[in-house]
Amino acid sequence: MSQLLLKTLREDPADADAAGHALLVRGGYVRRLSSGVYTFLPLGWRVLHRIEQLVREELDAAGLQEMLMPALSPLELWQESGRAAFFGHEALPAFTVEGRGGTFVLGPTHEEVVTVTVGAEVDSYRQLPLTVYQIQSKFRDEPRPRFGLMRTRELVMCDAYSFDVDKAAMGTSYQVVVDAYRQIFARLDLDATPVEAVSGAIGGDVNHEFMVPSAVGEDHFVRCPNGDYAANLEVAEAAAPDELAAVVDPPPLVEHHTPDRPGIDDVVAFFSDDGVVAADLLKCLAVLDDEGRPAVLVVPGDREVRVPHGWHLFTDEDFAGRPAFVRGYIGPMGLGGEGVAVLADASLRARPGPWITGANKADHHVSGATLGRDFEVDGFGSYATVEAGDPCPRCGAPLQLVRSVEAAHTFQLGLTYSTKLAGATFLDVEGAEQPFWMGCYGMGMSRLLAVLAEEHHDGQGLSWPAAVAPYDLHLVTVGAGRSPEVLEAGERLYRELRERGAAVLYDDRDLSPGVKFADADLLGMPVRLVLGGKGVARGVVERRRRKGGEEDEVELAGAAAVLAP
Amino acid sequence: MSQLLLKTLREDPADADAAGHALLVRGGYVRRLSSGVYTFLPLGWRVLHRIEQLVREELDAAGLQEMLMPALSPLELWQESGRAAFFGHEALPAFTVEGRGGTFVLGPTHEEVVTVTVGAEVDSYRQLPLTVYQIQSKFRDEPRPRFGLMRTRELVMCDAYSFDVDKAAMGTSYQVVVDAYRQIFARLDLDATPVEAVSGAIGGDVNHEFMVPSAVGEDHFVRCPNGDYAANLEVAEAAAPDELAAVVDPPPLVEHHTPDRPGIDDVVAFFSDDGVVAADLLKCLAVLDDEGRPAVLVVPGDREVRVPHGWHLFTDEDFAGRPAFVRGYIGPMGLGGEGVAVLADASLRARPGPWITGANKADHHVSGATLGRDFEVDGFGSYATVEAGDPCPRCGAPLQLVRSVEAAHTFQLGLTYSTKLAGATFLDVEGAEQPFWMGCYGMGMSRLLAVLAEEHHDGQGLSWPAAVAPYDLHLVTVGAGRSPEVLEAGERLYRELRERGAAVLYDDRDLSPGVKFADADLLGMPVRLVLGGKGVARGVVERRRRKGGEEDEVELAGAAAVLAP
Repeated sequence: MSQLLLKTLREDPADADAAGHALLVRGGYVRRLSSGVYTFLPLGWRVLHRIEQLVREELDAAGLQEMLMPALSPLELWQESGRAAFFGHEALPAFTVEGRGGTFVLGPTHEEVVTVTVGAEVDSYRQLPLTVYQIQSKFRDEPRPRFGLMRTRELVMCDAYSFDVDKAAMGTSYQVVVDAYRQIFARLDLDATPVEAVSGAIGGDVNHEFMVPSAVGEDHFVRCPNGDYAANLEVAEAAAPDELAAVVDPPPLVEHHTPDRPGIDDVVAFFSDDGVVAADLLKCLAVLDDEGRPAVLVVPGDREVRVPHGWHLFTDEDFAGRPAFVRGYIGPMGLGGEGVAVLADASLRARPGPWITGANKADHHVSGATLGRDFEVDGFGSYATVEAGDPCPRCGAPLQLVRSVEAAHTFQLGLTYSTKLAGATFLDVEGAEQPFWMGCYGMGMSRLLAVLAEEHHDGQGLSWPAAVAPYDLHLVTVGAGRSPEVLEAGERLYRELRERGAAVLYDDRDLSPGVKFADADLLGMPVRLVLGGKGVARGVVERRRRKGGEEDEVELAGAAAVLAP
Repeated sequence: MSQLLLKTLREDPADADAAGHALLVRGGYVRRLSSGVYTFLPLGWRVLHRIEQLVREELDAAGLQEMLMPALSPLELWQESGRAAFFGHEALPAFTVEGRGGTFVLGPTHEEVVTVTVGAEVDSYRQLPLTVYQIQSKFRDEPRPRFGLMRTRELVMCDAYSFDVDKAAMGTSYQVVVDAYRQIFARLDLDATPVEAVSGAIGGDVNHEFMVPSAVGEDHFVRCPNGDYAANLEVAEAAAPDELAAVVDPPPLVEHHTPDRPGIDDVVAFFSDDGVVAADLLKCLAVLDDEGRPAVLVVPGDREVRVPHGWHLFTDEDFAGRPAFVRGYIGPMGLGGEGVAVLADASLRARPGPWITGANKADHHVSGATLGRDFEVDGFGSYATVEAGDPCPRCGAPLQLVRSVEAAHTFQLGLTYSTKLAGATFLDVEGAEQPFWMGCYGMGMSRLLAVLAEEHHDGQGLSWPAAVAPYDLHLVTVGAGRSPEVLEAGERLYRELRERGAAVLYDDRDLSPGVKFADADLLGMPVRLVLGGKGVARGVVERRRRKGGEEDEVELAGAAAVLAP
């Protein structure tokens, strides 16, 4: 430690918006160079490297093949796939670079490059299945870098890509990677749950996010306490009956004059004397579907509406050309038919009414509106976000809502890329040209470091899982400057441990025990060894486990054999 | 091999401008994605990774500390160091990237970043010396990518940086890295010579290039056959006497009317009847030194002039304002004094005359001009390039000229960066603030792969040194499709070898022996093992060394123990 590039800090850094990140900075693991751009100092590099090696071991064991693609890729490839159109959006905030070789994209992901690369190498179904991966720096022009290494503009990623002859084979390759990911998370001591998710800018149908519960998570997922369901909040569904529930003696439909009350909160306030809450209202939103046809999404007033991918809410212009849609006063009655689909969240089957909702007339609402009596819908779907306590779609148990961070994401891409990019085909057993069935898989190495720091720390500092700790052992001498015996015992134990292959952080600094112990707790190696005058005189070294704090003594004679992992 | 992402090619690729690169492409090691931008397929990745691991071992053993800096760095840092001004030039062709975080430079090298990073961590002389390194992708907007991985727009580099308290300590740290580099090249079986070189866009005084003789080299260096001198052609010097040699009976100084003969070739042609050659002429070039003062550089007519760093040849404008300099007819006589320095190449001490040179008068030359009799000079220096056969400056032996490729470059930077960038200081033993004495060290990992392919191949294909071969052993079965015994022996040997830690490329493909052997020669593992029906019946496996071609047989019983490295 007297030679290591390491300066520990006693205070949290100003930019620390997450506890784990603050400890990574205080412990001299990482330093910010610019917003969302970090340097890994020697300790941080060691953890990152051990994560990478662990991931390599598991992916190699699963039969994946490592390769390395460049960060620079020609813009033309992204135009061919159609994704260049998304570069301005948050989903795919790619940097582009102008140079003597034309315009390059600084790869935020490598579907395009790997598709044309493998396409050029694989001619026959005999060469499939094939799954390749790389560990490499990715670049994203993030609008809002956050939580240290969690969301950065440059990140180390492990991305894998599978190529198969058909959909079933794709599913098999997908499962191989998912299983390897589970194994990786188990070794990292991370409680990662694969949840169903939306594919966003990547494409494909089936995909899963591996979510780790975290106080600094930017996502939420719901899970069933029985373990039979987990889904990202964006796609989660709750159980709903197949049939409409009966409503006993619904109150009559009554129209109310509600001037200047266009919002849910406004209406709740208007009816506050009657004890009305948001859950008693229906929220009705005008949308245009992916083919430009108008529709109304009907969800309970206490839920967020979930607009299907490719659809969008009415703009000012959309309202202007369609006087039947009275902004702020839309209701499910009378709008159906005539080319307008009324689509209700499936939860309305369980509660058909009575509802307070818009009267499709300026400054008017109705109360008592009941599905089946006062209005009909053209279809049911999951148009509202799920909340904690909603019934599990598999077993009906109340779902839990978990704040979490995405630690990996896997996609069944199908033919999304292979039908858009030239040459992404093989000859099948009949000699016919077929596009690849592909999957893609991403796991952020630098993000995992942040997740580990977030999940494995306490009030004193970090506490690394043994599999990825920068050093296996933290050897501290106390009073070595005054005691040649302690110095000699420390040097010898350090040498013997290293000869046995242990990675040892040796605190040989001339500092007080308090400072050295505080640094040991902050840095978080799994095991701390202390050599002091009394112990050396008695022929023992003290051992303390960082997690749990158990302490014992080990005989110095033969200690290296006992202590080396 | 039946599962490996590998397609070997029988023909050289169209873009192969170097033999080694052609083999890397034919052997499925690398693929070009764009001009100067390459993908490493699984075999190429394995070599690259083994090079990296070997380099890590040596640098770690030498006490260097690994870290990882980002590729993105803020433009402001490069403005602070002054290097942003060089981005348009060939010396530092950096890509810049515009994004939400401002303008980033895609690091072509990391002096700026490491200087401010270490500056923030190191406060005291007690933390020095310190040498850090990283292995990471670098980016250069190369005008002319060439020779495959030799000169690319994206490359994997190992760059190291040393920090010291004074110049002597910097020299010590420099030598530690130079020694580690020598060790690395020895393990890579590369004949790399450290040669004195110019520092160019990096800065500093002392620096060395590690040159590997190569037919596709873009550089030349001179070396003494006795091993006591080696230098890049740009800085090489030849021996010259300390005193002027005597000239016995020099011919008289005679003026000649030489209309329209401004060039060396023109003058040689004019005097051709007298057997005059270029080496009999003096070439005199008007320059402005780094402070804008005019001077004349005088070199033998058969040599290239070497203009000192920061000086430049007269432009049209410079000539226009100085009528004493008669373009095409400049000579060393009469121009000295009056603020004009006449500077002669040191070789003129050995041959003071007689010379044919300009008469400082339009359309006139003189012959017989002799230093000491007809003209004087204000100083001597190395103003002419050295050629093969010139005397070694150390021992006088005739120097050799070697075409070569730069495999690494080391620099003693001194205070170049630490005095320009804020915070690059430490407190010395007196408590006074001092700038770091720095060194920087670069070795191209992907370029080394290309150099290795260039130096280690023959007419049949690649021939990797054992230290970095993608696999230790290439196991080929012959006729396994027809012989269950061969199949079974192959599978068993493959399994046993891997259990012993050997990296084995197993050719289990159902192809003819000729195709399999040709691929084995092309791919170039150090040892090929062949299992055929006859050998298996006799209980032996054939072993053939790729280099040299020695063949022998190994008993199948216990073969794994004998063959595993």
